[in-house]
Amino acid sequence: MDSLTIIAAVSIFTAGITIAIGGMMPSRGEGEALTKAIESVARQPEQANQIIRLFFIGAAVVESVAIYSLVIALIILFANPFIHLFTK
Amino acid sequence: MDSLTIIAAVSIFTAGITIAIGGMMPSRGEGEALTKAIESVARQPEQANQIIRLFFIGAAVVESVAIYSLVIALIILFANPFIHLFTK
Amino acid sequence: MDSLTIIAAVSIFTAGITIAIGGMMPSRGEGEALTKAIESVARQPEQANQIIRLFFIGAAVVESVAIYSLVIALIILFANPFIHLFTK
Amino acid sequence: MDSLTIIAAVSIFTAGITIAIGGMMPSRGEGEALTKAIESVARQPEQANQIIRLFFIGAAVVESVAIYSLVIALIILFANPFIHLFTK
Amino acid sequence: MDSLTIIAAVSIFTAGITIAIGGMMPSRGEGEALTKAIESVARQPEQANQIIRLFFIGAAVVESVAIYSLVIALIILFANPFIHLFTK
Repeated sequence: MDSLTIIAAVSIFTAGITIAIGGMMPSRGEGEALTKAIESVARQPEQANQIIRLFFIGAAVVESVAIYSLVIALIILFANPFIHLFTK
Repeated sequence: MDSLTIIAAVSIFTAGITIAIGGMMPSRGEGEALTKAIESVARQPEQANQIIRLFFIGAAVVESVAIYSLVIALIILFANPFIHLFTK
Repeated sequence: MDSLTIIAAVSIFTAGITIAIGGMMPSRGEGEALTKAIESVARQPEQANQIIRLFFIGAAVVESVAIYSLVIALIILFANPFIHLFTK
Repeated sequence: MDSLTIIAAVSIFTAGITIAIGGMMPSRGEGEALTKAIESVARQPEQANQIIRLFFIGAAVVESVAIYSLVIALIILFANPFIHLFTK
Repeated sequence: MDSLTIIAAVSIFTAGITIAIGGMMPSRGEGEALTKAIESVARQPEQANQIIRLFFIGAAVVESVAIYSLVIALIILFANPFIHLFTK
């Protein structure tokens, strides 16, 4: 196994495992927030607009963590700063 | 084992494990939200339309995290940026 | 062990493990939602139609994540993009 | 160990482990739903028909995920797309 | 170790482990449902016939997932599609 093979194999595996594990808790947190938002809209329908707006803005904040993992995964795949060291 | 074999084997395994693990928490979060949506519709049937609409829009937000994993898995399978380094 | 053997072995194992793990949380989420739907129909039988309709539409949303895993498993088995590299 | 031996061994092991793991959560979800259905029928016997019908239709939805695993296991055993590459 | 030995060993191990793991959650789900059925019959003895009938029909649904594992285990033992490749 030469160096380039090891780097490429590790890059592919890491890209996949990064978004898989990095997306677990953001999606769970969003699911819990959505659960409570649905419950709250049902109980205080006169607050529905405010609750929905808060859910979306809050979900964007939580989602940002998942997007960090996505960005790192995409960088590892498409802008890997180490791969050029092994491809002359 | 030559380089191309290692890269292909790692790619196949990573693609599968990425969507398998990456889909766990989104589907669980959606399941919890659906559970609460059903409960809420049963208790406040007059809010049903608003609850169902919020569930679908919110589920789309949670689903987006699962789609990140799917996109990375499909990139690894069909647009793998490393495979061309080994197939001359 | 030649290259084709490794790729085929990894493909078979990954296809199985992908749908096995990828189907766990969707089926659990659907089971929880079904549990709540049964409870809700028993308590508010006059809402039964709406509850059942929401359960089916919501279960389709949750099922979509399981179908992502199924699609990746079937791609790995029948449309494997790497297998042609090793079968000349 | 020749190639065909490895492929056959991996296929047999994967088929078994796929349905074993893939069937865990569907059966658990159905068990929970059945538990609630029994409780609901005992409390609201006048809703029994509707509850039982919902349980069966919902269990079919949950069962579908277990059937995905069964289908992949049977494909690996009887319609393995890789086995013909090794049996000339 | 010749090929036939490996295939036979893997088949035997997989058959056992498949039904062992595949039977875990169905039996747990049925146990929970039975627990609730017993409780419900004790509280509403006038509903006993309906509860018992629902338990048996529902347990058959849960059992079906365990039977999938049993079928795969029996196929691996008695209708193994790979064994004839090694016994000429």
